[in-house]
Amino acid sequence: MPTLLLGKPVTDAIAADLRGRVEALAERGVAPTLAIVRVGERPDDMSYERTALKRAESLGIAVRRIVLSADVSQAGLMDAISQVNADESIHGCLMFRPLPAHLDEQAACDALDPRKDVDGAGLGSLARVFSGRGEGFAPCTATACLEMLDHYGTEIAGKRAAVVGRSLVIGRPVAMLLMERNATVTLCHSRTDDVAAAIRDADIVVLATGRARAYGAKCFRTGQTVLDVGINFDAAGVMCGDADFDAACDMLGEEGAITPVPRGIGGVTTSVLMKHVVEAAEATV
Amino acid sequence: MPTLLLGKPVTDAIAADLRGRVEALAERGVAPTLAIVRVGERPDDMSYERTALKRAESLGIAVRRIVLSADVSQAGLMDAISQVNADESIHGCLMFRPLPAHLDEQAACDALDPRKDVDGAGLGSLARVFSGRGEGFAPCTATACLEMLDHYGTEIAGKRAAVVGRSLVIGRPVAMLLMERNATVTLCHSRTDDVAAAIRDADIVVLATGRARAYGAKCFRTGQTVLDVGINFDAAGVMCGDADFDAACDMLGEEGAITPVPRGIGGVTTSVLMKHVVEAAEATV
Repeated sequence: MPTLLLGKPVTDAIAADLRGRVEALAERGVAPTLAIVRVGERPDDMSYERTALKRAESLGIAVRRIVLSADVSQAGLMDAISQVNADESIHGCLMFRPLPAHLDEQAACDALDPRKDVDGAGLGSLARVFSGRGEGFAPCTATACLEMLDHYGTEIAGKRAAVVGRSLVIGRPVAMLLMERNATVTLCHSRTDDVAAAIRDADIVVLATGRARAYGAKCFRTGQTVLDVGINFDAAGVMCGDADFDAACDMLGEEGAITPVPRGIGGVTTSVLMKHVVEAAEATV
Repeated sequence: MPTLLLGKPVTDAIAADLRGRVEALAERGVAPTLAIVRVGERPDDMSYERTALKRAESLGIAVRRIVLSADVSQAGLMDAISQVNADESIHGCLMFRPLPAHLDEQAACDALDPRKDVDGAGLGSLARVFSGRGEGFAPCTATACLEMLDHYGTEIAGKRAAVVGRSLVIGRPVAMLLMERNATVTLCHSRTDDVAAAIRDADIVVLATGRARAYGAKCFRTGQTVLDVGINFDAAGVMCGDADFDAACDMLGEEGAITPVPRGIGGVTTSVLMKHVVEAAEATV
């Protein structure tokens, strides 16, 4: 059985670090504050909002909810973002996506001040992830992968990493973060020929395709570290990752490691969001 | 002997295409214009300037030279860039780098309007290369690699590519351009363990480390396509690429292909610069 890379110890460690930093900010009169922009009442958004509110509260981070109706105009949305940008008491902003189809999501993301773009949604943040310069944050899930590896002491430099999935929310940014840490990264995607071989070649595997249990025994070998970013529901409604977890465990062996779904990367993502808010607040003092 | 991927036929094909487009612009009263910003009198810059002037002239593209003294202040440089941004008769701008050490090169690059950033130097252009959205251009050498592959009919989609070198001028952007075309890309660098094996695994290899003849027989195998972006001079002062060309040719065999140095990618880069100027001019009409 491989080591289970559980999210909870990582989340606890981040929380312990953040509590001290929030206190230090309070002593300087700064209350780190996250704005959450939500359009409509999508159940996924409402659920994540509750999680974020609870987590923020436990850390002493304030949350300002900005709720817009599902039929808000683009101008109305852009106006809300301008207000967030202008409000010095707001340090970070999370806007739930996807937005309703009538809205230009990219324009909205790109309008947010990169210094407040704590989920790395805008062009400025993406430019920073790619180039290492400018302002902004990496998307939280991408950073969560690195937090997970660092917490469990997984060596990154000089290792081969395979990232499966090339989205801007996770695949491409996590590839850049791993490369920045001197991994040799292969970016795989739907058009990759023999993705199983590419995954098997790697020491560190990040699965981020949103395909329930799509990666089975032939993708894995002894000793790999697998970060399963997928949050899927199978036909029976059971939450699962992109890896066929049981098959992966069989192959990874004692020396391997894998994040379960649930109880893996998901919770760490919320912690990283809070960490980014604290960093954004620290940058203002 | 592998196929020699010579730059000249690519350059000729691009020129034939551009001449028609320049004529069409002329009919609409637009004279595509490149501004060249040069600080001081570095021989490399002067040499490339002459090449660019000649190439531009042959295509009917106007060039405006903006020459600043080697001790220009940052304010003076930024002022020149502001003037380029404001001047509607200038469609593209190339600024020679590296700048003298007393200048903030990144600030200068990022200040250029991305729509005129025809060598992809600024953050806006880099963000576009990474994300596929926003405005700007890929760095010319990165685009030149794709032009070379396309001209010679090399299949990219579904192929494995190894990019060696992770600079923002070539390695990282060409990795993104290859991925956009559905290659599975491995980004190698100085910290890659067993770079020879990583290169050997790939169908398409881009060498961009600036290490003279550093990649020899054990890096190559039959049938690969090798794009050698390095422009180096050996101890005897002979220009050479990053590949040990003779050793590579032995390994690649009849089915392989390689760009020589000189007469390979270098000249195509200048053509891409001109193509970007024409594209920038077309975007204004």
